[in-house]
Amino acid sequence: MGRSGRPGGYLRPVIAPAPFTVADHLLQRLAELGADTVFGVPGDYSLGLLDHIVAHPSVDWVGTTNELNAGYAADAYARLRGIGALCTTFGVGELSAVNAITGSYAEFVPVVHIVGAPRSTVQAAHRIVHHTLGDGQFDHFLGMHADITCARAALTADNAAGEIDRVLTAVRDHRLPGYLLLPADVAEAPVPRPATALPPRSSVTDPEALAAFASAAARLIQRGAATGRGPDASVLVGLLCHRLGAAGRLTDLLAAAPLPHATTLWAKSLVDESDPLFVGTYSGAASDPATRAVVEDAGTVILAGVQFTDLTSGLFTQHITRSRTIEIGAREASVGEARFGPIELPDALAALGPVVAELDDRPRDPRSRRDRKPAPPAPADPPVTPADHTDHTALSQVALWDTVTAFLRPGDIVLADQGTSFYGMGLHRLPTGVTFIGQPLWASIGYTLPGLLGVGIAEPDRRGVLLVGDGAAQMTATEIGTVLRHCPRAVIVVVDNDGYTVERAIHGPEQPYNDIAAWDWTCAPAFFGAPATATRVTTVGELRTALQQAQQADRPTIVQAVVPALDVPPLLDTLARSLGKK
Amino acid sequence: MGRSGRPGGYLRPVIAPAPFTVADHLLQRLAELGADTVFGVPGDYSLGLLDHIVAHPSVDWVGTTNELNAGYAADAYARLRGIGALCTTFGVGELSAVNAITGSYAEFVPVVHIVGAPRSTVQAAHRIVHHTLGDGQFDHFLGMHADITCARAALTADNAAGEIDRVLTAVRDHRLPGYLLLPADVAEAPVPRPATALPPRSSVTDPEALAAFASAAARLIQRGAATGRGPDASVLVGLLCHRLGAAGRLTDLLAAAPLPHATTLWAKSLVDESDPLFVGTYSGAASDPATRAVVEDAGTVILAGVQFTDLTSGLFTQHITRSRTIEIGAREASVGEARFGPIELPDALAALGPVVAELDDRPRDPRSRRDRKPAPPAPADPPVTPADHTDHTALSQVALWDTVTAFLRPGDIVLADQGTSFYGMGLHRLPTGVTFIGQPLWASIGYTLPGLLGVGIAEPDRRGVLLVGDGAAQMTATEIGTVLRHCPRAVIVVVDNDGYTVERAIHGPEQPYNDIAAWDWTCAPAFFGAPATATRVTTVGELRTALQQAQQADRPTIVQAVVPALDVPPLLDTLARSLGKK
Repeated sequence: MGRSGRPGGYLRPVIAPAPFTVADHLLQRLAELGADTVFGVPGDYSLGLLDHIVAHPSVDWVGTTNELNAGYAADAYARLRGIGALCTTFGVGELSAVNAITGSYAEFVPVVHIVGAPRSTVQAAHRIVHHTLGDGQFDHFLGMHADITCARAALTADNAAGEIDRVLTAVRDHRLPGYLLLPADVAEAPVPRPATALPPRSSVTDPEALAAFASAAARLIQRGAATGRGPDASVLVGLLCHRLGAAGRLTDLLAAAPLPHATTLWAKSLVDESDPLFVGTYSGAASDPATRAVVEDAGTVILAGVQFTDLTSGLFTQHITRSRTIEIGAREASVGEARFGPIELPDALAALGPVVAELDDRPRDPRSRRDRKPAPPAPADPPVTPADHTDHTALSQVALWDTVTAFLRPGDIVLADQGTSFYGMGLHRLPTGVTFIGQPLWASIGYTLPGLLGVGIAEPDRRGVLLVGDGAAQMTATEIGTVLRHCPRAVIVVVDNDGYTVERAIHGPEQPYNDIAAWDWTCAPAFFGAPATATRVTTVGELRTALQQAQQADRPTIVQAVVPALDVPPLLDTLARSLGKK
Repeated sequence: MGRSGRPGGYLRPVIAPAPFTVADHLLQRLAELGADTVFGVPGDYSLGLLDHIVAHPSVDWVGTTNELNAGYAADAYARLRGIGALCTTFGVGELSAVNAITGSYAEFVPVVHIVGAPRSTVQAAHRIVHHTLGDGQFDHFLGMHADITCARAALTADNAAGEIDRVLTAVRDHRLPGYLLLPADVAEAPVPRPATALPPRSSVTDPEALAAFASAAARLIQRGAATGRGPDASVLVGLLCHRLGAAGRLTDLLAAAPLPHATTLWAKSLVDESDPLFVGTYSGAASDPATRAVVEDAGTVILAGVQFTDLTSGLFTQHITRSRTIEIGAREASVGEARFGPIELPDALAALGPVVAELDDRPRDPRSRRDRKPAPPAPADPPVTPADHTDHTALSQVALWDTVTAFLRPGDIVLADQGTSFYGMGLHRLPTGVTFIGQPLWASIGYTLPGLLGVGIAEPDRRGVLLVGDGAAQMTATEIGTVLRHCPRAVIVVVDNDGYTVERAIHGPEQPYNDIAAWDWTCAPAFFGAPATATRVTTVGELRTALQQAQQADRPTIVQAVVPALDVPPLLDTLARSLGKK
């Protein structure tokens, strides 16, 4: 009956395939880069994009209670996945996330921030619409992102595909955040489906520079082997080894010769801390003396992607002798005073492998110091050993972190907030395969709680263990409910010490501004309406029991661990005294 | 025995008076302007300043759980007090508050943001210290405040006193936020105690322009009285009447003649809503027809400090005929097409008093329309009247806001969050002396919860009544504990409708991104460890009982009011349909 339209004579309606839009292009590129989740909070300028996310086959939406927490979650996700994404709405949303984005910038975390904006016609007409300054201008907030993103774009229907590709490529290659301003109508604009994937990153390494670097490095190491008071050569591992995707090259280097090695606090867990040649985390004068000797007294020390900041260098008390140092930066390497480049960090690491291997293999001269393998340094005696903590011992900072460390298992992801948690765990040796996440440069307290959400989404099969002070947890506690819902394996240890202990240690230990309200964290499951086991513990035994139960539980665990307000971990004590004096 | 130093022969030690410092200067100026509270979160770069606050005789410190909430609290405080202040730490702290500061800028709220910064020597040496981008630069975040503050300064020991005075004067005079970057050492630098108070603001009004404006206005009004279909003259009151300190002049104008008048939603409660000449809040085509007629059909309409924004104009459906309009802006006034200036808003209002009084007093011509007083417009029949709600009625948006309105008492301060709460209350007539706080231009949901803290600190003898949706409350809920501790009279009504209903109304009513987790708000007192009465209500009777108990209680009240997820107040429904279509 064809098109007659009579009853019984329908044509099956021809449903045109939904057109491929700018939103689809963006999501396809995010998926290509490895992001399967967009965090955020809906807003009326971004609802259209959110429809595309909900409908997307491989990218999911995870809503958070606010945008700062979305930014934190995306950051932690990106540290594990190599890319993260959040979507917020214009003005109110994006600016709530600015602290998180700036933290991502400071700590080299590739996060894409997509901001839903008023329609192009509204912008062109300079309408006084909500979430604006009321001046008809729509570029204020884009401008505020100039210093804290590596690439930005105000998308239009005409430029969107190219600009999205440009910004996402920059985020991937520079390991820094990017910003996309996406008007609601532009998200729905049709674009051709991209025919090819994003071009891979091309290396900038100059082979001649690399060869010259390797030769110079070999000479320095051979000379150093005869002169150092400590080991012939050692390695100090920095954060950039992780951020620049050089973990494999680093492993190869450490396998090429028995090099004693340390990490900075910022790079904690980038190497296997159970390796006997791992000598600890280095923090300048605040380090364990054995760690310090390996780094500072080696014939040659290789600084691999190291940046010294105040809180990761014992307040700039590192003592590195340049003439005995090989330093590998993101795009340049140096041997003593000589600089070589452009050389990308992974290439420099790879070039050092044969150099150190040769050192290890060369014929032994019995009179030389080279005939002995670098002995693993004697671990310093901690003031209290785990065995000293009986079940009846009242919790202290030392007992707390010792007990938590004993609970960790391979595969765990530990998030330590930038207070007593970070410094308390900083010098503890982690089991093989534990990932440690902290934020010692940006140091935004509260980061790790939404970070735990990001971790749980990024690596659902691994257990996230959050260690956070009560003052920090109060900053971002609204995300506890989201964590409890999404992360059944999560363990949250809230250090209940009645305030900002890290600030007390620096200044004003008894001042009222360092006090905070005492929350009852065991009520969190009831308040947030989500299943979890929550316990308050005051002794080592109670903590052990709570953690053992977490080991077997099929739902999240919250432990409120009570320690004295003025108790601080030894490393923090050292740092804080110096900071206070300054 | 004098200085002998022998036992029993002590001289009482001479304690030098503490030197007067930059911190003291800043606090003295804040106190002069009327701020007795600084909100914020401590950080190691600001701890020295905090010592001065704690020691100050008239300025107190109120710590919040995070900086965004401190900014919101300071904003609400400033709306009542005419000045507000917050103190945060460099980078992590200040950037967490950026959304609040930008909101203050958009809504003309004078807030001083003091940011504790690294010491001058650290900055000069470009040290890579915490809370920075790690590039040794310290001006990135100051720069990010360029578009969202009316004045900024990076303080030094040499410029501090003058720059503080400049920035604070600008904040006071422009009713916009200001930013002070205060290095820790500069806070402690000695400065001379200021000999005089800040100079008062000087008016820019040109007397000749003012006289010309008054004459032109008189001519227009007299002509309009003979031509308008509605009242001879009416007034539409806008937000700037409040922000520019013209409340008294406005009252005088409305007392000078029986002018029917309305406010914008943004200016709600600036006039006594129980006055029979008050005809309601005007929202363009979304207004009650009687309200609309008084504004749009008057012989002359006086727009007093009005700015039309999308959400306060029924999406720009206002119909104002310029030739019949007197418009009073911040520094310029117009009569029809003729503009006059510089004239400050309070002066223009004052000049109109005699003009409208004369109109009222002139001899009546029995043939003229002027012989009748402008009749109070007939109030539109609401679809449901409060009397229709029995105790057994299940709560709906209409029943909720009707019942809440009936509970309000003179002196209450109502904070209505920018969702169903704001629109639900928008068209309700408030009792005399009730202050209404909303944020319809910036429209940052969650603002009002920390705002309630600011209100409670600013006006401890008045009762703060918070009306907030669950999605909004989850954004900033960490401040509930602070509110419960500081504000014993506070009443919090959380609209439990299972998600972002304002977004559902616009787009995606059933989409998962508009869902939120269901929290049990009755557990809030236990979780936050603070005394309060908390009840969940589902009927009008239960709500009435809870509010009656709040009336008598000596501690805060939390009411979790359950309404259907897709129920929206009529005004929001109208707006959202239009927004969704756009």
